[in-house]
Amino acid sequence: MNGGEIENLITLLGRLPGLGPRSARRAVLHLMKKRESLLLPLAEAMNRAASAIQICSTCGNLDSQNPCSLCQDSRRDPALICVVEEVGDLWALERSGAFRGRYHVLGGTLSAIDGRGPEQLHIDALIARAGKSEVREIILALSVTVDGQTTAHYISECLGDQQVEVSRLGHGVPVGGELDYLDDGTLTAALKSRRPA
Amino acid sequence: MNGGEIENLITLLGRLPGLGPRSARRAVLHLMKKRESLLLPLAEAMNRAASAIQICSTCGNLDSQNPCSLCQDSRRDPALICVVEEVGDLWALERSGAFRGRYHVLGGTLSAIDGRGPEQLHIDALIARAGKSEVREIILALSVTVDGQTTAHYISECLGDQQVEVSRLGHGVPVGGELDYLDDGTLTAALKSRRPA
Repeated sequence: MNGGEIENLITLLGRLPGLGPRSARRAVLHLMKKRESLLLPLAEAMNRAASAIQICSTCGNLDSQNPCSLCQDSRRDPALICVVEEVGDLWALERSGAFRGRYHVLGGTLSAIDGRGPEQLHIDALIARAGKSEVREIILALSVTVDGQTTAHYISECLGDQQVEVSRLGHGVPVGGELDYLDDGTLTAALKSRRPA
Repeated sequence: MNGGEIENLITLLGRLPGLGPRSARRAVLHLMKKRESLLLPLAEAMNRAASAIQICSTCGNLDSQNPCSLCQDSRRDPALICVVEEVGDLWALERSGAFRGRYHVLGGTLSAIDGRGPEQLHIDALIARAGKSEVREIILALSVTVDGQTTAHYISECLGDQQVEVSRLGHGVPVGGELDYLDDGTLTAALKSRRPA
């Protein structure tokens, strides 16, 4: 129906999360219409990201420098390390602007089903970082799922011998959340963590 | 938070139809994990498509050759020309395998609201093609919307003096469609076009 170039591009784009074959086709038609303003800049941006972006050897963040700009930023508190599963979680916390310490990206959670054990996560590196004298608190910002909480529990155990506090994120009603739509687990957690009004 | 490379890639990807900022971020994280197997091949496929794919000067299809492989295919019936709005519609008809003639891509519909007049569509080229002796029928495969039907009507008028039949797609119940979910217009059309069982 046309050169293999278009089919190839549709196949590759369709492998992005959130794009199926149908939306990949739409995206390719859009790209062919915006050749100068979108298609070529996108190809260029991909090549640049592929060559410039590295994984921070300290925290696991993605950045064009190593150690990453967060690890190098002396205004951030080195006493606090926030442990997250993926770089996307780090980005979400940064967007909130609520945390001014350092991060540690695990690279996932322990998972019995997917066969991911501690050795596949950056847990050893976390324990080494936690042993440094400047570190005071490790905040476990992991998903409230079975795997996330298993991982949090495992890390707490590992850090048991060390001179650091280990904390978790608070549970409760999400800001903007309606009670009616919340699951029982969240409601129970919100009741338990109630505060004077 | 990181080199501008990632932000830039997220912004550009977020301009694709079907991807917002959130899904663009997810896509970029996925790409950074699959650097060799997806990110670089995708950049390469984009560059190749940008340089290889042309618009067929006969029918408006996208292809690496001009005239496109459909226009060059001698097994396709040159007596039938199927008029579509966009290349995506041509692809959809090709996937159905139901049409073995030639195509003509208008590049949109007439639209009073968007200020698109006949001179912005490839209508003149269609009239020129319709005047050729081998062409017997023009099939208007346009959307069943106000703009699509206005465009079909306008083209029918333009072709009035010529020795070609002009037809439209049949309306009715979509295959797999449940009556309960159909709008009144479709039901009315389906009743009018009823056939002996």
